[in-house]
Amino acid sequence: MARPSEDDLIARYFRPLATSAGAFQLKDDCATLKAAPGEELVLKTDAVAEGIHFFADDNWHHVAQKALRVNLSDLAAKGATPAGYLLSLALPEQWSEAQLAEFTAGLAEDQTTFNVSLLGGDTIRSPKGLVITITVIGRVIEGRMARRGGAQAGDRLYVSGTIGDSALGLMLRLTPDETQTHLISSENAAFLIDRYLLPRPRVGLIPAVSACAHGAMDVSDGLILDATRMARASGVGIEIDIAAVPLSAAARAIVAADPSNLPRALTGGDDYELLLSIPAAAAARFEAMAKNAGIPVTPIGRVVAGDGTVQLLDADGHEVTVTGGGFQHF
Amino acid sequence: MARPSEDDLIARYFRPLATSAGAFQLKDDCATLKAAPGEELVLKTDAVAEGIHFFADDNWHHVAQKALRVNLSDLAAKGATPAGYLLSLALPEQWSEAQLAEFTAGLAEDQTTFNVSLLGGDTIRSPKGLVITITVIGRVIEGRMARRGGAQAGDRLYVSGTIGDSALGLMLRLTPDETQTHLISSENAAFLIDRYLLPRPRVGLIPAVSACAHGAMDVSDGLILDATRMARASGVGIEIDIAAVPLSAAARAIVAADPSNLPRALTGGDDYELLLSIPAAAAARFEAMAKNAGIPVTPIGRVVAGDGTVQLLDADGHEVTVTGGGFQHF
Repeated sequence: MARPSEDDLIARYFRPLATSAGAFQLKDDCATLKAAPGEELVLKTDAVAEGIHFFADDNWHHVAQKALRVNLSDLAAKGATPAGYLLSLALPEQWSEAQLAEFTAGLAEDQTTFNVSLLGGDTIRSPKGLVITITVIGRVIEGRMARRGGAQAGDRLYVSGTIGDSALGLMLRLTPDETQTHLISSENAAFLIDRYLLPRPRVGLIPAVSACAHGAMDVSDGLILDATRMARASGVGIEIDIAAVPLSAAARAIVAADPSNLPRALTGGDDYELLLSIPAAAAARFEAMAKNAGIPVTPIGRVVAGDGTVQLLDADGHEVTVTGGGFQHF
Repeated sequence: MARPSEDDLIARYFRPLATSAGAFQLKDDCATLKAAPGEELVLKTDAVAEGIHFFADDNWHHVAQKALRVNLSDLAAKGATPAGYLLSLALPEQWSEAQLAEFTAGLAEDQTTFNVSLLGGDTIRSPKGLVITITVIGRVIEGRMARRGGAQAGDRLYVSGTIGDSALGLMLRLTPDETQTHLISSENAAFLIDRYLLPRPRVGLIPAVSACAHGAMDVSDGLILDATRMARASGVGIEIDIAAVPLSAAARAIVAADPSNLPRALTGGDDYELLLSIPAAAAARFEAMAKNAGIPVTPIGRVVAGDGTVQLLDADGHEVTVTGGGFQHF
């Protein structure tokens, strides 16, 4: 059966997503975007690939949403309001219009949820497997983008939501027997697997980040590595109280069954939660704004004078290190 | 041998490219870009993939430049001055730091040539083969982006440079025996092959496009298809005088040896020249500005009242159509 031309695909599937005036209904080669006086634009590009960031049998509805959401998560961490996105889609040899319809339905749903629209894009044949590259553009007040390198000694360290669900969900997808081994309920397993499938970018925290955060980034490569990146970029030390790191009920269940899953949770990645360094004087206001947005935030440690390292502390305040199988006490 | 971490790769190879203040030396998750008062930003994303847009044995220096240049070509067509770009790099299983050094050296060279710098990016593992997705951002005076759909009946149609070189170069790479068959010189063959390898985005025409063009786009999918797109987007007809379409000496030689190469030149794609519809009253100014920029431009036809179709005319003004093997006269 003959495939529709790229022009036909654009008209049928992508044009309905291009609702902003500057997208020119995708009838031009480029899009335009204005910044209001006193604003600047915030830019980010991130790709997700089949077999690396999602599974070949994942529904394209969710895959499209994941591709968009990992980028929106970065904007949220910067206190930047989403304005639009560009999509570069590498389609594998085997794809169906039904899959493409699911893909664009997923995007349409998220465009409503996150108040963002498609500005432009292109499609190419993929050498192997679906690859989705999205560039998002957000808006901030000029000079006010929250910075990874803004943490200051004396700040409190917060994370949004819960940590480790996605990494544990990925483990359950890769080795389904683990569900049995850990004797967790199918509901808990489904919860964790869903958290891997579909990030929840914390756009509701954008006003709180913008108003209160000294240092800010999203947690995408594991809490400990990303906290280390914040410490390095800021030229500070960071102390994390392991017992304070918020875990979901499902994660607590799987950690209770096998404590070696705790390091996995803290290092596993794909959380897409926000890691924020908040000055002590702003902590109450930050917590109130987060509560108002309906997004849980938890203090997990503090920023101290230092040279870019992260110290993990157990419940007694003793330093521990993460090893393959658990925590090692000094 | 252990591969460097992504953080190390960024520091070693990509940080030197991130010279704009808003790139934050790639030490943050996002970049910022300001538009000056009265400006708006122009956005475009385009990907190139190994085995599709370039050959696996092409030098990464050129591959990187091609990936950037196909995007700069779109900005030039819109009369937009390049401001920055984001890079998403999918690296195959097999790559060397020497290749990455070539890649970034190619980008560094083009950053100087085209006065543009890296704003951000990411690297992922590619399921198969190198894939490079670049998003470029340019600047125009607000509301002044040259539009594909701006052509008006009465306009003259121009192209920059020469048409078909790249498609003929690709043919010679795919079937080297054609060089012998067509008895063209090795110099001519090398010229055509080089034109496929490395586009020359017509950024020198940006002031002329901005000042004079009614309708504007770059020619990337073949002159005739792209002219049809301009005609459709503008709601006009376009007449192209085939004999007026500018061919390089190398292309003329290969067409003289086998006339079936002329349709290949007109439909083959990868030209990255500009297709511009210029009001008659501005033609002299446009030609003077192009001459001043040192870029050849050639009138190849005219915009007429119509419904989105392109008519090809032979030297006697009779309509012809392109078929697989040549032109068919009505």
